Amino acid sequence: MADRPATMPAFADLPRARYEVPDGDSRIRAVCDTCGFVNYVNPKIVVGVLASFENRILLCRRAIDPRKGFWTMPAGFMEEQETAEAGALREAFEEAGVRPRLTALLALYSVPRISQVQLIFRAVLPDASLAPGPETLEARLFAWDDIPWSDLAFPSVHWALNHHREVGEATLFLPRSNPAGQTGDARPQGL
Amino acid sequence: MADRPATMPAFADLPRARYEVPDGDSRIRAVCDTCGFVNYVNPKIVVGVLASFENRILLCRRAIDPRKGFWTMPAGFMEEQETAEAGALREAFEEAGVRPRLTALLALYSVPRISQVQLIFRAVLPDASLAPGPETLEARLFAWDDIPWSDLAFPSVHWALNHHREVGEATLFLPRSNPAGQTGDARPQGL
Repeated sequence: MADRPATMPAFADLPRARYEVPDGDSRIRAVCDTCGFVNYVNPKIVVGVLASFENRILLCRRAIDPRKGFWTMPAGFMEEQETAEAGALREAFEEAGVRPRLTALLALYSVPRISQVQLIFRAVLPDASLAPGPETLEARLFAWDDIPWSDLAFPSVHWALNHHREVGEATLFLPRSNPAGQTGDARPQGL
Repeated sequence: MADRPATMPAFADLPRARYEVPDGDSRIRAVCDTCGFVNYVNPKIVVGVLASFENRILLCRRAIDPRKGFWTMPAGFMEEQETAEAGALREAFEEAGVRPRLTALLALYSVPRISQVQLIFRAVLPDASLAPGPETLEARLFAWDDIPWSDLAFPSVHWALNHHREVGEATLFLPRSNPAGQTGDARPQGL
């Protein structure tokens, strides 16, 4: 049985796999050696909100790994049979107990090493009440100067906060993408 | 062995599956009864381009099902370890042999029944030369009045063409989403 090709990430593997290009395809896929199941793996979508109330920004302290104890905007894997917008609202409710109104797509980020696309919506909260869910240790509204910059969970949290600030009061803008040269991959010193 | 839950689409199934909520999860997943593999399935991303050259718009006639013989913008499933933008450019090259310059995210569409998210970029072609790939019967640049409206492949092709037209010469705009009330699901009569 051939080894998993170096270009295929471990999470795309199957417990009993062979590796071959299925008919009509152009890439090697993991195929189960027992039952023939072809494990097509494609990038996953993270949907989330950069939500604010009267200039304060909602962040949640993660109760789960990766980056447990660090701060992030409410965001998580989009599930089957929902729209991107519905997924972002679901995550906002699951993680912070809030029901914001989405106003625009703030950013489309790609993290190619882990095959992830992030769709982050700008959103406005109806009030300041928060109710953290089981994946959140603590939810809080931060004034810009109080943001815990050294305790943010991921590069994309930095990006989204800065892009939100950069857009400011504009209502017409292009969604931001990864800052030039940044892959979202490593967490550079000082972030 | 339990049946596949009605909420789980057939393509999320495994040949030998049981259905259960894995530890720390909140949804039923298909788990292989032979080897224990958990088949996490999430929405897939289609990336594509609404590309133009001197006011003419690039469309490709599909050489493959679904909707073989009908016209679409170059688009396809995003692959592992690429960015959304790189995927859109890859599809443009694979399907039409073109290397356009992306100018903005035109649209973020969701097709929840089939758990698909489409990211369509506006793009500008360097010249009028096209070189259809194996998944394309024919590639052509259409003036607006010559677009084959009754032979378009999918609702989202209509949407993207109309949204491109609506944006016009604007350089700052919000990406469009599904037209109100449309799920991308059925192909209404006359489309």
